[in-house]
Amino acid sequence: MSALLDDDRLFPLDPAARDLARHLYQSVRDLPIISPHGHTDPRWYAENAHFPDPAGLIVVPDHYIFRMLVSQGIGLDRLGVPRADGSVAEADGRKIWRLFAENYHVFRGTPTRLWLDHTFESLFGLEVRLNGATADLYYDRIADCLSRDEYRPRALFERFNIEAIATTEGALDPLQWHRQIRESGWTGRVVTTYRPDAVIDPEFEGFADNLRQLGALTDCDTGEWNGYLEAHRKRRAFFREAGATATDHGHPTADTANLSDSEAAALYTRVASGAASPDDAGLFRAQMLTEMAKMSVEDGMVMQIHAGSWRNHSAAIFASHGRDKGFDIPRRTSYVDALKPMLDAVGLEPNLTIILFTLDETAYSRELATLAGVYPCLRLGPPWWFFDSVEGMKRFRAATTETAGFYNTVGFNDDTRAFPSIPARHDVARRVDCGYLAELVRSGQLIEEEAADLAQELAYRLARKAYRL
Amino acid sequence: MSALLDDDRLFPLDPAARDLARHLYQSVRDLPIISPHGHTDPRWYAENAHFPDPAGLIVVPDHYIFRMLVSQGIGLDRLGVPRADGSVAEADGRKIWRLFAENYHVFRGTPTRLWLDHTFESLFGLEVRLNGATADLYYDRIADCLSRDEYRPRALFERFNIEAIATTEGALDPLQWHRQIRESGWTGRVVTTYRPDAVIDPEFEGFADNLRQLGALTDCDTGEWNGYLEAHRKRRAFFREAGATATDHGHPTADTANLSDSEAAALYTRVASGAASPDDAGLFRAQMLTEMAKMSVEDGMVMQIHAGSWRNHSAAIFASHGRDKGFDIPRRTSYVDALKPMLDAVGLEPNLTIILFTLDETAYSRELATLAGVYPCLRLGPPWWFFDSVEGMKRFRAATTETAGFYNTVGFNDDTRAFPSIPARHDVARRVDCGYLAELVRSGQLIEEEAADLAQELAYRLARKAYRL
Amino acid sequence: MSALLDDDRLFPLDPAARDLARHLYQSVRDLPIISPHGHTDPRWYAENAHFPDPAGLIVVPDHYIFRMLVSQGIGLDRLGVPRADGSVAEADGRKIWRLFAENYHVFRGTPTRLWLDHTFESLFGLEVRLNGATADLYYDRIADCLSRDEYRPRALFERFNIEAIATTEGALDPLQWHRQIRESGWTGRVVTTYRPDAVIDPEFEGFADNLRQLGALTDCDTGEWNGYLEAHRKRRAFFREAGATATDHGHPTADTANLSDSEAAALYTRVASGAASPDDAGLFRAQMLTEMAKMSVEDGMVMQIHAGSWRNHSAAIFASHGRDKGFDIPRRTSYVDALKPMLDAVGLEPNLTIILFTLDETAYSRELATLAGVYPCLRLGPPWWFFDSVEGMKRFRAATTETAGFYNTVGFNDDTRAFPSIPARHDVARRVDCGYLAELVRSGQLIEEEAADLAQELAYRLARKAYRL
Repeated sequence: MSALLDDDRLFPLDPAARDLARHLYQSVRDLPIISPHGHTDPRWYAENAHFPDPAGLIVVPDHYIFRMLVSQGIGLDRLGVPRADGSVAEADGRKIWRLFAENYHVFRGTPTRLWLDHTFESLFGLEVRLNGATADLYYDRIADCLSRDEYRPRALFERFNIEAIATTEGALDPLQWHRQIRESGWTGRVVTTYRPDAVIDPEFEGFADNLRQLGALTDCDTGEWNGYLEAHRKRRAFFREAGATATDHGHPTADTANLSDSEAAALYTRVASGAASPDDAGLFRAQMLTEMAKMSVEDGMVMQIHAGSWRNHSAAIFASHGRDKGFDIPRRTSYVDALKPMLDAVGLEPNLTIILFTLDETAYSRELATLAGVYPCLRLGPPWWFFDSVEGMKRFRAATTETAGFYNTVGFNDDTRAFPSIPARHDVARRVDCGYLAELVRSGQLIEEEAADLAQELAYRLARKAYRL
Repeated sequence: MSALLDDDRLFPLDPAARDLARHLYQSVRDLPIISPHGHTDPRWYAENAHFPDPAGLIVVPDHYIFRMLVSQGIGLDRLGVPRADGSVAEADGRKIWRLFAENYHVFRGTPTRLWLDHTFESLFGLEVRLNGATADLYYDRIADCLSRDEYRPRALFERFNIEAIATTEGALDPLQWHRQIRESGWTGRVVTTYRPDAVIDPEFEGFADNLRQLGALTDCDTGEWNGYLEAHRKRRAFFREAGATATDHGHPTADTANLSDSEAAALYTRVASGAASPDDAGLFRAQMLTEMAKMSVEDGMVMQIHAGSWRNHSAAIFASHGRDKGFDIPRRTSYVDALKPMLDAVGLEPNLTIILFTLDETAYSRELATLAGVYPCLRLGPPWWFFDSVEGMKRFRAATTETAGFYNTVGFNDDTRAFPSIPARHDVARRVDCGYLAELVRSGQLIEEEAADLAQELAYRLARKAYRL
Repeated sequence: MSALLDDDRLFPLDPAARDLARHLYQSVRDLPIISPHGHTDPRWYAENAHFPDPAGLIVVPDHYIFRMLVSQGIGLDRLGVPRADGSVAEADGRKIWRLFAENYHVFRGTPTRLWLDHTFESLFGLEVRLNGATADLYYDRIADCLSRDEYRPRALFERFNIEAIATTEGALDPLQWHRQIRESGWTGRVVTTYRPDAVIDPEFEGFADNLRQLGALTDCDTGEWNGYLEAHRKRRAFFREAGATATDHGHPTADTANLSDSEAAALYTRVASGAASPDDAGLFRAQMLTEMAKMSVEDGMVMQIHAGSWRNHSAAIFASHGRDKGFDIPRRTSYVDALKPMLDAVGLEPNLTIILFTLDETAYSRELATLAGVYPCLRLGPPWWFFDSVEGMKRFRAATTETAGFYNTVGFNDDTRAFPSIPARHDVARRVDCGYLAELVRSGQLIEEEAADLAQELAYRLARKAYRL
């Protein structure tokens, strides 16, 4: 037991299983981190500037933190979260930090608490617990650390033992930070990911303008269907040059479609004007998942589908503070019918990998494991967002392994913009997976040698292989 | 180990976690009971008469008991459950009790068994197990107890250490028993709850008549929308005078609506006649949830929504025996889309508390914890009805804590009309919660001091605070 | 610990619970097997011929095995799975076996692995683990065994201690193998089951022809509704003569209907031509579930409903390889509304048993346990297909027992065509159930004597009673 962290945290309670879990964990604890999907800012690695103050680094940008505080009656303004118009109601980092510290108890039992305590102790050397009384001590210690060179982005990247990290950029992004990283001679591997939602979703803000920009960037005629598809091909190639091995698609549903070429062209004409009906918008998104999958067959990019979030659920918060303010809520999501058009088109392609994510845990055993347990192109992404948690991971393994096994899964994603928490997040996943394997051994379902092999797979090899990194 | 009860029942199996759970439990075992939602009869406390015979107290009114016996082929008539016409096929309490006792084994593994054994041992001092051979011994012992003064309602209320209990009355109820309790000088705190389903649901039996009665009671013109709303305001005030701090709404779905005033008025005109279409009936219920929430903003009453039961599923049983005969079946229930109109209207109000209950456990992690984990007005009610059980409580905590934490939950509801079982029900909840907390400590997710604090919150403080008692 | 199997496999990890589980298991381990629902071939028992080579017995016909290998990119052709046209791309059993053995690690954590290791060790005496290096050793050993008389079907049947096994035959089946078994003087009890999907589902291949055949077999006029119903009655009687005590219905949904006689007759006329609309097809299947239930009231046959599989999800695989090739995917399935017409018609009949199965685990606690916990005709079938697994069984018990108890369940079904694995499958169920009971005892929810009684019920008595065997 160190100051804030129990050395045996997240392992099974049974002593024999715990011993084995600890043993397995020791064999993977120091493996390099593969972070094949996430949202850190490539500019950090490019410019390698100091991070901002503690509140600006840890509280203000973290939707897990501010959503919980909002739920307890603490408004976004008091937490310094910027408004849609760019103004900031509270700019005093120390004041924000104190408010957070005084309410740190509301995170009891959440993964945020696990990630933060890990970060506080192992990154900032803090040895007392965070609360109102220790708020200033924390603030000063963290601020001091951040002012030092060994806490700049590249130093942390190396300290974290990151072998490869993927960022996520929109289709129109110039990728200048990735270029700057490459040209800097720094050897840290930071790759981008092609995330074309803004030029695929007719309901995205500024969709028609986005198409025009896409055309300008690629010299393609995005006024018509074939030119639009060609523009995607060119941007995908451009992203691959910046290291991308994958695409990512954040859709409200997992619907796919496989229209005839003439139907698709006519649909494109209807939506490209920027005034699509909701039905047309949904059908176009569905069609484009299939198109993206077909392009992946051509160019080998791994396709990720993150489906099922109702974004910006509160109209008032969207108006006052804009997107990504913690008001994104999961919905019931279907896969069996939704994916059929795409699977009928490309589901048996030998060189295709499609990684499925869900926010509807009921789909794990009923739909996702059963689909991934037979279609060769499908793999199951790790538990996502609210389910990137101890119990979430346990439910995922318990619900999927018996039907899809381990080899249709792809290791862990930290999926975060909270850079300092990356080691903590991988550590949680490694601990939970080792605990799960230990329980399988202790209940006679695996032998220890297999568990040791699988621990390596889950912590490192499956991610590298599935994402072709 | 006492006669019927294991002292360590419901604690984790792991010895270290069990020790800690026991320790936590000892610190909350004797806390007063807050029972903020339930269905005991206020007349009991008002008149303080002796309870009826054992079968009449324990078997005949308990839908958990008779539904299970019906499932095994024992008809309601043989159990003395009254028919819709008021007749009773079997009036011999001892015969009913024997039938129950002979089949007591079918309750193995159910919460009913836990509650009853607890009641038998701790309230009636029984030390042998119930079965056909001991049926008469039980019957005689319980009957003897019930004849004594220390088993009358107020004596039990005090013996149970109830600090406050809420009953539930319809909007038209004269609340005379609550007045009688107040005027009696007895200090037991029994408050009512405003449950206006019969004047809100156009499909309720006698809806049009109910509206007329509502108008007569309040001197409001319930022939039109504004008069109808005003009548609600007056009844809410009348209920608050009888101690009510909360309202309760039992709806088939969680749908809400936020119509314009003129649309709502027109809708009211259509439904008030008592001949609403199913669509209008649903829309009116939906609109009224939002109206009730708006009134809660005005008057500070806590709002409870119990959604998702298909009442009276068997047409034949409804015809022969009427409502509430165990044939109420949960249905899949949506919240994310259903609650949006209400949340857009009042979701960010600082003084509003809406407590959500569900019979669809799939909503816990996907919809309810994610909504309550950000909207400041929302709180999660404890597991309800079929899920007020050991595994049901464990699933609730495992599915909600990581996203909504503990502080968006509201402690325990016994929600019962089975008065003698109230201590047993709170005891089960306290044990399961202490076990859950102990496991979090033993797996390094909380420290012991935090667990001790949370044990108090879950057993006592959160309920008192959330219900403003 | 024997060579491949841990003696304590699948028992709880906690040592005290494990000891008790082992003790309970020892009391049921050697009980006879009741296999009331499955798909073994009656011809095996009739002809008692040697089984084919190891690959032909174990790999080629087992959809659990080949679907997992397909998911890892190994095509059906390489596994010797016959194509729709009857051709077989790979006929070399040893080559197929080697491919399987090299990839055996992908089954880690699946029930297939448990069943196979059990079979390899206890049936074929293998003491090293299967992998590429031991593939030939396995092949030779198993081939050698299969050539011996003590590995012929009847010898295995007796060695497996099977008291009764049910096969499943279509309504048009002549049941000659069952006759041959009866006439052979062999005393093994092999009964059939009436599975009339091909003459009930208007979307079944050859439906119109099937109706004509049904008419010819029964001398009934299947050109009209009453003749069609009469034909069912005759076939049901014919099946009962071959020992059938049950019917089985594999429907895409659990929908039921209860049309008037004239509506049903008109509907039949529309569908009998073989050109039903999808709506008519669905409605006819729904109506026929109610008709089958009514006939069960008449003739006492137990009715099984297996609902919720999207059969043949991949159009390409269906075209190349036909039905039952591992591409059957579960879908969300509703029961509360779906079953109401049938339950209103026959739900309170005293002599009726309807056993419900699901592939949608969310229905366990919400719909199935709540329905079976009150309707006297309903019973819950054991976890089916993908959920016939360790975690699947645990989730089933945890989700259903508290509401439906044990006595509304019906023991275990192996539901398999993989004859050699039958003891392994029952062994898994017995171990998991004993572990569950042990945990209930250790957590004070049952006493040991009750657990011992329930272990017998779950392993043997409930199945025999529910299926009237």
